[in-house]
Amino acid sequence: MSTPPLALTMGDPAGIGGELTLAAWARLRTSGPAFLALDDPARLSALAARLGWDVPVTPVSGPEEAAAVFTDRLPVMTVRLPAPSVPGTPDPVNAPAVLGSIERAVALAQAGQVGGVVTNPISKATLYRTGFAFPGHTEFLGALTGTAEPPVMLLASPMLRVVPVTIHVSLRRALDTLTTAEIVRTGLALHRGLREGYGIESPRIAVAGLNPHAGEEGAMGDEEPRLVVPAIEALRAQGVDAFGPLPPDTMFTARARAGYDAALCLYHDQALIPIKTLDMDGGVNVTLGLPIVRTSPDHGTAFGIAGQGIADPGSLVAALRLAADMAARRFPKAAA
Amino acid sequence: MSTPPLALTMGDPAGIGGELTLAAWARLRTSGPAFLALDDPARLSALAARLGWDVPVTPVSGPEEAAAVFTDRLPVMTVRLPAPSVPGTPDPVNAPAVLGSIERAVALAQAGQVGGVVTNPISKATLYRTGFAFPGHTEFLGALTGTAEPPVMLLASPMLRVVPVTIHVSLRRALDTLTTAEIVRTGLALHRGLREGYGIESPRIAVAGLNPHAGEEGAMGDEEPRLVVPAIEALRAQGVDAFGPLPPDTMFTARARAGYDAALCLYHDQALIPIKTLDMDGGVNVTLGLPIVRTSPDHGTAFGIAGQGIADPGSLVAALRLAADMAARRFPKAAA
Repeated sequence: MSTPPLALTMGDPAGIGGELTLAAWARLRTSGPAFLALDDPARLSALAARLGWDVPVTPVSGPEEAAAVFTDRLPVMTVRLPAPSVPGTPDPVNAPAVLGSIERAVALAQAGQVGGVVTNPISKATLYRTGFAFPGHTEFLGALTGTAEPPVMLLASPMLRVVPVTIHVSLRRALDTLTTAEIVRTGLALHRGLREGYGIESPRIAVAGLNPHAGEEGAMGDEEPRLVVPAIEALRAQGVDAFGPLPPDTMFTARARAGYDAALCLYHDQALIPIKTLDMDGGVNVTLGLPIVRTSPDHGTAFGIAGQGIADPGSLVAALRLAADMAARRFPKAAA
Repeated sequence: MSTPPLALTMGDPAGIGGELTLAAWARLRTSGPAFLALDDPARLSALAARLGWDVPVTPVSGPEEAAAVFTDRLPVMTVRLPAPSVPGTPDPVNAPAVLGSIERAVALAQAGQVGGVVTNPISKATLYRTGFAFPGHTEFLGALTGTAEPPVMLLASPMLRVVPVTIHVSLRRALDTLTTAEIVRTGLALHRGLREGYGIESPRIAVAGLNPHAGEEGAMGDEEPRLVVPAIEALRAQGVDAFGPLPPDTMFTARARAGYDAALCLYHDQALIPIKTLDMDGGVNVTLGLPIVRTSPDHGTAFGIAGQGIADPGSLVAALRLAADMAARRFPKAAA
């Protein structure tokens, strides 16, 4: 028996998710990893036909059948859309199917029937209109899996791994809400994620300073001695190989990156600028702190180009590959 | 007659400036651009001898003689050190010579005898102990040249040009002091600098947002509509091709960079992270808004490795080349 296939969710059916699913299958059908889509087979077939892509779509009953047919056909566990999807025009009527796709993927992962969940991008604005009460995808997954702690977002590319301690808040709010406790919590989740997900025995974690030159001994801001240094000390006391605070501008050079496995950053753009500047299309979003493997591409629904077949599947393919690697570590017997 | 040579200052004689000067001459002696050092010939000769480098140092009377001998010898206009320099151990006794070197370089540039000034790194902490009253190198140059407006720092590499609107202040203070007027002033200086220094007729200037995703329509912070958009409108009203505010994390990808000549950034690390991540050693600091050409390497005195001959002269060499390019635009007749 091999590692189970992955579950790939629909995402917003008006976005680029459908064509990325088709393209990812074409890219991975022979090499793997195998996956099944939780989507509407009729809409995927129609999309393939409209794009002129030779992707035979087949409904399957479950992961075992999906793995058996993957080389020849794109296996789909059916999640019926209430209304036809129109590229570029999200429709709240389809929200239950969007959420249902995620729920079924998570259930399969919790049952050990799939190796992990890879999610296509959703439109939060569209879901909000139907009463969706979570800040985003990740928090929804946390709730579905009964995770008490807020999950932690790792962005991974072949050149760099970064985790932002504060994420989708204004820069001022990031400054106002940053605490030692949250740096420690995020650092511990990163430490565990690198061990369990990547098999790195003793991960080296570089912790960024907040201010220019990491504050230059207090000359520019006091957050480093007041918040960051105590967090690093607390992490080290718990056996985490964390070090810093490092000057943010020089910690992402090739030379500096060779010295750590991941960078713990204090605000969104401190983490996102370097990883996107280095590698726009190969970035993958990994959710740490869930009881299941979950990755996603590092882009949105891209309504503006949806349905044209020009969206780059590189990030989704990378997300599928990384999820498979992580799943193999969670299913060591199956992989052997 | 050719373009006049450049003036290269001493910097802190306990730092890596001396060995960089020697190495830059070795690198440029045949290709140019020619430069003269404003330094102590005896200490440069001793340093070359100690490192075992074949760099014949010769005192010269002025730029014309310097240009004539440059292919064969490193020309030095003498600035005598009061005390011997010890690598790694800055001595405030030598501060008058450090400042004198800068003053003489500026005077030569103002007189049109040199094409521009390239500065080796100084130690602000050491100068402060002797009563130096300027925040840094750039402000001192502003005062020496009688420049009313604060100069503006452009960082340039072959892949990216960036200008931070706020610089060496804490991130919190950057948020507290950012104004529309200062964004406009900096953007105008950048516009002029790209025209005069780089010969770009109508420079395209990408303006960064402050918050994640540039605030996402006000969902995360109000600085974009409140401060940045009015600045862009004011710049455009004055004929500057400025656009934005752009999401900070995606504006430095290769694809995005192809769409502008320089990025106007709102805080230190928003500008410095991408340029240093892309190119640690080739970055050059350009001072805009002075009546003379001034560039410098994008690193400090590096006291920790001074005197060992291992410091990389790449950034100083790039600073000399860029200053020569800029000087050629200011001395079109001489260059012809």
